[in-house]
Amino acid sequence: MGMPALCGGLECEAVRCAMTSQTQEPRGELTVRTIAMPADTNANGDIFGGWVLSQMDLAGGIAGADRSHGRVVTVALDAMHFIAPVKVGDVLCVYTQVDSVGRTSMKIHVEAWARRFESRTREKVTDAVFTFVAIDEAGKPRPVPL
Amino acid sequence: MGMPALCGGLECEAVRCAMTSQTQEPRGELTVRTIAMPADTNANGDIFGGWVLSQMDLAGGIAGADRSHGRVVTVALDAMHFIAPVKVGDVLCVYTQVDSVGRTSMKIHVEAWARRFESRTREKVTDAVFTFVAIDEAGKPRPVPL
Amino acid sequence: MGMPALCGGLECEAVRCAMTSQTQEPRGELTVRTIAMPADTNANGDIFGGWVLSQMDLAGGIAGADRSHGRVVTVALDAMHFIAPVKVGDVLCVYTQVDSVGRTSMKIHVEAWARRFESRTREKVTDAVFTFVAIDEAGKPRPVPL
Amino acid sequence: MGMPALCGGLECEAVRCAMTSQTQEPRGELTVRTIAMPADTNANGDIFGGWVLSQMDLAGGIAGADRSHGRVVTVALDAMHFIAPVKVGDVLCVYTQVDSVGRTSMKIHVEAWARRFESRTREKVTDAVFTFVAIDEAGKPRPVPL
Amino acid sequence: MGMPALCGGLECEAVRCAMTSQTQEPRGELTVRTIAMPADTNANGDIFGGWVLSQMDLAGGIAGADRSHGRVVTVALDAMHFIAPVKVGDVLCVYTQVDSVGRTSMKIHVEAWARRFESRTREKVTDAVFTFVAIDEAGKPRPVPL
Amino acid sequence: MGMPALCGGLECEAVRCAMTSQTQEPRGELTVRTIAMPADTNANGDIFGGWVLSQMDLAGGIAGADRSHGRVVTVALDAMHFIAPVKVGDVLCVYTQVDSVGRTSMKIHVEAWARRFESRTREKVTDAVFTFVAIDEAGKPRPVPL
Repeated sequence: MGMPALCGGLECEAVRCAMTSQTQEPRGELTVRTIAMPADTNANGDIFGGWVLSQMDLAGGIAGADRSHGRVVTVALDAMHFIAPVKVGDVLCVYTQVDSVGRTSMKIHVEAWARRFESRTREKVTDAVFTFVAIDEAGKPRPVPL
Repeated sequence: MGMPALCGGLECEAVRCAMTSQTQEPRGELTVRTIAMPADTNANGDIFGGWVLSQMDLAGGIAGADRSHGRVVTVALDAMHFIAPVKVGDVLCVYTQVDSVGRTSMKIHVEAWARRFESRTREKVTDAVFTFVAIDEAGKPRPVPL
Repeated sequence: MGMPALCGGLECEAVRCAMTSQTQEPRGELTVRTIAMPADTNANGDIFGGWVLSQMDLAGGIAGADRSHGRVVTVALDAMHFIAPVKVGDVLCVYTQVDSVGRTSMKIHVEAWARRFESRTREKVTDAVFTFVAIDEAGKPRPVPL
Repeated sequence: MGMPALCGGLECEAVRCAMTSQTQEPRGELTVRTIAMPADTNANGDIFGGWVLSQMDLAGGIAGADRSHGRVVTVALDAMHFIAPVKVGDVLCVYTQVDSVGRTSMKIHVEAWARRFESRTREKVTDAVFTFVAIDEAGKPRPVPL
Repeated sequence: MGMPALCGGLECEAVRCAMTSQTQEPRGELTVRTIAMPADTNANGDIFGGWVLSQMDLAGGIAGADRSHGRVVTVALDAMHFIAPVKVGDVLCVYTQVDSVGRTSMKIHVEAWARRFESRTREKVTDAVFTFVAIDEAGKPRPVPL
Repeated sequence: MGMPALCGGLECEAVRCAMTSQTQEPRGELTVRTIAMPADTNANGDIFGGWVLSQMDLAGGIAGADRSHGRVVTVALDAMHFIAPVKVGDVLCVYTQVDSVGRTSMKIHVEAWARRFESRTREKVTDAVFTFVAIDEAGKPRPVPL
């Protein structure tokens, strides 16, 4: 628990993983971390939901490829709520955790958090469970290794 | 029902809306229609799920702005399954239908269909219900007009 | 003519195709429908002409691939005028109609319309005739099927 | 005419401007020079016509802003033919020349050339006359200065 | 040091920060983590150096904004070597550490690492020291808070 | 030296190459020339350093491919300073000059200049020496031809 002192300056992502039991902390490992840019805005000047969904799908795909040692495709996502908006300049942090593994599929919990520009406070944007299927070169389902 | 003959060549989107009771037909109105490009692929060379989700969010947002006469934000989406993949060269057709309207929110059914390159057959990719909230200039919820 | 009532809310694209003889209606079938985003603006904050031309070329290419059952390339476009601007938040609707078919080429009429944000009025932006040539795997012209 | 020797290596754009009377040489000044990237390809893997049109519109807009000392909008383009394709890795060179100036409008000749990867040969892709109108802050036409 | 066991599957970024004294470990905190996509390739199909530089500049800018509580601009970067290539499907991890702080400027060490697709091995791509200056609303240098 | 008169209107790039000995003139040949667009801005609305670095890397890569008659990869860049910012609407001109050639590598001097919107004045943004290595089909270093 002395780690935050080691980390200083930038809020320490490192501590995250050790604290998942605590409330208001992201669950899982940091998989995508990127800044919301003007090019990602909709006609209102807001970061649009689809961009957040894209980053979550990418993050889940990274975690799925990692767990299954190869290519994966998204086959489902659970219901989800957007709790807080993402604004230009926010850093979007996407955390993933493999919840369960079937023969060829994996359920992966994906959480998106926004770290606000200047205030550096952090708010949960949304979470969802994505299901990915491991596929082979031909695009056919393949077993997820143990 | 003589309309298909009038439409010829390109499969006639016009007929769609009049046929929603029929099986295997998209439900709602065509709101976004765009081609899947190489720039939209993931590391596998497949069109990634996040791109489809983005187009569905855009389409739902257009329908919501239309129904509410102003700005909207995405606040939720229901569980969804990806039934078929989208490939480079496919035309992605996104259909929307306002399912219900609350005081400040709208539930909008969104369907994505892929029209395959060359074969011109059409397959449903996925559907979901998105919830949008109408917002004012300050980003606060505003009533959806009757 | 009872269709508009069936369609409600969103202006019904479905009716379009049946109404091409009427004045001030788009000619052809809806081929591309997309929203103009901030990422598509030029230094002035306007949607730039090149973006509209790109969407028209894509739409014409879809119609040409459809008519010729395969790959096509753009070989020419007729003179064109931009009658109205496109603004961020507008929905750009591109309509196409195959005007004539040669041995390996097709003349395709392409119209771009803007559906204004909030007002939901619709204005013609421009039209042009694009010529596409059907090509084979090696990029050589191939006959357009009857 | 000794300039090519000074320029060496890369084909010397510098000489271009002094040689416009010569056949097979681009007409006008080099206004945009950029490389065609995989992200600019269509479903066939070809650089699509719309990307070339966008670069030509940008180049014409730069020349028009330059001539009129301020903002411009594209109002028309003449008929044009695509003589040669552009491939990934080609350098696209767009040349512009102000052909005539009206009270608020300018006719600008725009040529696109492809410099082939490795062979470094150069081929004309297409040309067209674009018409731009000078506009003020409010988007209204303004006189083009002498 | 028991943390790796807690983290499982995905290589645990959490451990990174605590291990900076160890050889072959990234230095600093994970600031940007993103996947290299086909849209980021050059004509060769490789992820081009400029994309890596962009991600490093973004990461340094996040760290600088964080340290200085506001806007920053890049003013310099030190000499750098690209030790290993980045390939499509790799996860690019960019680590940052504030090396020193002047009155209005900050020197930030930035490292880019590639986590290879499937093998999940990790290789350092490059590192550099970026200098950022803190700026106010008017774009003028402002003091970096203690 | 009478060339500027021949060139008129747009500032004549042609003269550049003949004037490299003169102070305040770009060194090398114009290799990339493009306009800075809103899509290239960071959260502050400024054109971000990474975009400029990308354009410089592209330009250096074009010059390197040209000199070595084939594919190249970026292996190093020297220290660099950003002297002036780039703003939306500026034309970014990138000049390159091959400084020296080794067996498989080339040192290429790259300069970025901004031509300001409306004022049409030109300012040097930054310069650097990039090192590129010529590679063959397999990605292995190959000799640079004499």
